[in-house]
Amino acid sequence: MAPERKLTVNTNNPLIEAGHPLDDVRAFRRCLGQFATGVTVMTTQHDGQKAGMSVNSFAALSLEPALVLWSIRRESGSWPLFRAAGHFAVNVLAEDQVELASQFAKPGEEKFGLVPWAVGQAGSPLLSGTIAHMECSLEQIHEGGDHFIVVGRVLRYARFGGEPLLFTQGRYAVTQEHPGAVQSTTTTVSASASAVDAAEGSLMRLLHYSSHQMSAWFDEHREAEHLSVAQFRIYGWLRTMPRTLDQIKQLAYLGGRDADDAIADLLDRGHITCDEAGVLSLTPIGRERADASARRVTAFETERFQGISQAEIATTRRVLGLLAHRVAAS
Amino acid sequence: MAPERKLTVNTNNPLIEAGHPLDDVRAFRRCLGQFATGVTVMTTQHDGQKAGMSVNSFAALSLEPALVLWSIRRESGSWPLFRAAGHFAVNVLAEDQVELASQFAKPGEEKFGLVPWAVGQAGSPLLSGTIAHMECSLEQIHEGGDHFIVVGRVLRYARFGGEPLLFTQGRYAVTQEHPGAVQSTTTTVSASASAVDAAEGSLMRLLHYSSHQMSAWFDEHREAEHLSVAQFRIYGWLRTMPRTLDQIKQLAYLGGRDADDAIADLLDRGHITCDEAGVLSLTPIGRERADASARRVTAFETERFQGISQAEIATTRRVLGLLAHRVAAS
Repeated sequence: MAPERKLTVNTNNPLIEAGHPLDDVRAFRRCLGQFATGVTVMTTQHDGQKAGMSVNSFAALSLEPALVLWSIRRESGSWPLFRAAGHFAVNVLAEDQVELASQFAKPGEEKFGLVPWAVGQAGSPLLSGTIAHMECSLEQIHEGGDHFIVVGRVLRYARFGGEPLLFTQGRYAVTQEHPGAVQSTTTTVSASASAVDAAEGSLMRLLHYSSHQMSAWFDEHREAEHLSVAQFRIYGWLRTMPRTLDQIKQLAYLGGRDADDAIADLLDRGHITCDEAGVLSLTPIGRERADASARRVTAFETERFQGISQAEIATTRRVLGLLAHRVAAS
Repeated sequence: MAPERKLTVNTNNPLIEAGHPLDDVRAFRRCLGQFATGVTVMTTQHDGQKAGMSVNSFAALSLEPALVLWSIRRESGSWPLFRAAGHFAVNVLAEDQVELASQFAKPGEEKFGLVPWAVGQAGSPLLSGTIAHMECSLEQIHEGGDHFIVVGRVLRYARFGGEPLLFTQGRYAVTQEHPGAVQSTTTTVSASASAVDAAEGSLMRLLHYSSHQMSAWFDEHREAEHLSVAQFRIYGWLRTMPRTLDQIKQLAYLGGRDADDAIADLLDRGHITCDEAGVLSLTPIGRERADASARRVTAFETERFQGISQAEIATTRRVLGLLAHRVAAS
């Protein structure tokens, strides 16, 4: 058996919240958000009308026959069109398509103007720049509480290069190689390597590892403040100026319902207010909390930088910048 | 609208493969793998017998009532026990639980010895060190091709700190903050910052960005060689010595079916052979391919390091190492 590798500071995984789902729907939603997913846009077209919606409840179902499933709210305004069309396309979003994910989380057809698309065999729009398309016929519909389970038969698929956009713990994210796997790959590839290669092998691993550790550290600090990621980011963006909910969602890379939940929580606690025009701002209590949180981050950062000179940091930045840009230009 | 941010070299997302799912089941499975997921272990217990299996087809279904779903192969040996028990627990794995994910992908009860677990309300085992538990009653079963769709009603949930394990494009991975979101967060938090904070803000972002760019570069190089991630890693591990399929899966952080598919592909092409004991080794053709691939990686790396001195790389390594360890120790 391979040795267990500790990746994060927090290996004890402290209990954050627990209960019956109906006692606190927002808390249950946060629990569901622990399961990371990709992001798809489901599209259809019928009688000259198009529908498209961001969905993260997609799952593979069967290989033979080739079936996939997703779920849709019973009251969704788009459902009648999906049902009438009898076909749909699954568009799996790439990591640079956050904007598309946000736009397709809203109703309306005008969002199809934001992205080039082609028409699939059965008429469903196939969005450009995604990492996969699956063109499906609507095969079965099952009742599932406040949603329908939609089962599609895949008639044609296409896989493209690129990395997936992720949705996890309420916000958009990207994937990173597992640090354990990076170590193995570079070690093996550089088995017959020169000193330069050996250094690079270690550097690449170190880069992944330190980047990952810093995220974990940041998250742990946030949890210690009893702040969700969404709340932390909302504080940050409202500290500089009042903003609308839509602006905050975009700036903070937050998903629709999670941002709504976080805002509702902060309104309930009296940390933010909302004026008639829908503009949100911090209350005096909210500002105190937001400032205290920012001060603690600064203190932690300063502590972490002790014993590292400005010159060393400058060199590190130069090397990382060179590597990143050389990669981008190659 | 927020400006689009280019994250990877490859924004054109070239077509890799396409077709009808039944023409090439392995290729279709690779397409399904474009949708990233978390990893769960579904557990149950009945009449003194336990069952547990790794599942990545989990999805949230309904909030009121609180329903979730997943799917299971019709011929799964564990299905009769799940069905008879009438209850199960969803265990959402943390990023340091790759070993658990691999072990629970195999049949047998002895894997419950690998991890501490508690007994839930209805009797399903709740695994320790995960980031969420959902205890469910079995609510509905739907036919879904070669799988059943299992719908559970959530009776109790618990959310823990920690980061999710991911399964994407055939291998285990971890999440990383979206580079766009990191930029925003650090900028805002350090609004009133000193020179050190400003440098740190940039460094953290740069770290995420360069780490991400290097992965993208690595992937692009691999795609140019027409190698899947699984194949690339299998070449790497077989270059040094023959190994069994199980060893390769563990070393290369590959998921069960994807590793099987990749091995089958390489056997078909005559790049590897399998002896009676199930030990895999490279054929002369396979070794040629594996060596050529390793040489190209080395050439790329050397080119990327031009103009950066050994001293600068050493400093970068020292700073990153300090930051990572300081974080781990805090």
